[in-house]
Amino acid sequence: MKNPTAAMLVIGDEILSGRTRDANMYYLAGEFTRIGVDLLEVRMVSDDAGAITSAVKALAAQYDTVVTSGGIGPTHDDITADCIAAAFGVKIGLRDDARDLLAAHYAAQGKEFNAARQRMARIPDGATLIDNPVSIAPGFTLENVHVMAGVPSVFKAMVASILPGLKGGAPLLSQNLRIHRGEGDIAGPLGALAEDFSDLSIGSYPFVQDGAYGANIVIRGQDGARVDAAMTRLAAEFAGDCA
Amino acid sequence: MKNPTAAMLVIGDEILSGRTRDANMYYLAGEFTRIGVDLLEVRMVSDDAGAITSAVKALAAQYDTVVTSGGIGPTHDDITADCIAAAFGVKIGLRDDARDLLAAHYAAQGKEFNAARQRMARIPDGATLIDNPVSIAPGFTLENVHVMAGVPSVFKAMVASILPGLKGGAPLLSQNLRIHRGEGDIAGPLGALAEDFSDLSIGSYPFVQDGAYGANIVIRGQDGARVDAAMTRLAAEFAGDCA
Repeated sequence: MKNPTAAMLVIGDEILSGRTRDANMYYLAGEFTRIGVDLLEVRMVSDDAGAITSAVKALAAQYDTVVTSGGIGPTHDDITADCIAAAFGVKIGLRDDARDLLAAHYAAQGKEFNAARQRMARIPDGATLIDNPVSIAPGFTLENVHVMAGVPSVFKAMVASILPGLKGGAPLLSQNLRIHRGEGDIAGPLGALAEDFSDLSIGSYPFVQDGAYGANIVIRGQDGARVDAAMTRLAAEFAGDCA
Repeated sequence: MKNPTAAMLVIGDEILSGRTRDANMYYLAGEFTRIGVDLLEVRMVSDDAGAITSAVKALAAQYDTVVTSGGIGPTHDDITADCIAAAFGVKIGLRDDARDLLAAHYAAQGKEFNAARQRMARIPDGATLIDNPVSIAPGFTLENVHVMAGVPSVFKAMVASILPGLKGGAPLLSQNLRIHRGEGDIAGPLGALAEDFSDLSIGSYPFVQDGAYGANIVIRGQDGARVDAAMTRLAAEFAGDCA
């Protein structure tokens, strides 16, 4: 059984300049793994209309689901919504339901619903809104692309809004063994294990601890009995080297 | 004056599954900004030969420099070197100088230089080695692609090895103003500023602090006097709202 596939597009100069460390990708990766959606690719691009539009087109064509983060606020560098509309060849304009949400929100706060804030109600034709309980300004879903804010607290809230509507697959079961031997010593038996359990994903993630090499071996699969069997064999082979 | 452009390819299931949070992208972004290389795109793909090869081809054709991280160790899931060779249509085989480096290293440690460890001396034809003072197994440069390890301490050491050979541009000067007003209040004056200083990059990065909205405004450019002028005007416009 194949799981649904997904990609993520992180938008923003602040990520690529090293000013801000992205947190949304790491969060989304964990959530998708939990519900059985395979995140297969992430791209990060700057606030450049051509780069955003072509990345959205490429990812939306290749994967079941695409999530974007960043560039949907009120300032001049927030151009994501226009790029999504361009990628799908649809119009974009002020939308009544989004404008009403925002108008009520700013009225309650005694803040002016000015031209900049009205920009956040510009939504591509045919999209559905994504609820934003944190700061009200909605994200949106157009075709298979979910467009969300870059501020981590808002991004998380929007992910929570779309997850119930996403079709997940079988959650990936995962077991981990920490082996205090260099990968060079582990590689032979591990390669043989990977051949015998070709239905599982077996990864080796090296580390250095107190100057000594080791590796975390992660065995993943949808069949818990198979994961158990592979892990039992691995643990027996490295019985003396595990923490 | 245009700066050299760069892209990064992060390779590894552990990143996309959310098991590990990538640190190398954030590090490389900071180093490239410091020497005036514009990191314009990052892609993250899983340990899949087709995905790695096609991403390398696409990025190497589009950017001046490409850096990859991950997948060059001794285990069965380390397939990056083969994918790079495939992307450039060159052969790959055991290379004498890389093998000698590794043989001496393992001999000194009293460890067997077995078949798995010898895999790390497989280098595509025409590549030059990248020095690895941490764990010896070298990275390599083929054409405009620098292939490095995923372990952060080794990745950093390899970045240090290649930086002196990279042609940088004018370092980007950057000034930052933290404004305690919502982006919706800032957006109007900020947009006008961005129009008047179209030679600069002006970004707005919202935050929430103690329940109140604010934004960090970052002004970047190669001409320090212009950055100063734009920042002076911005600071005057929001004199009462800055920390």
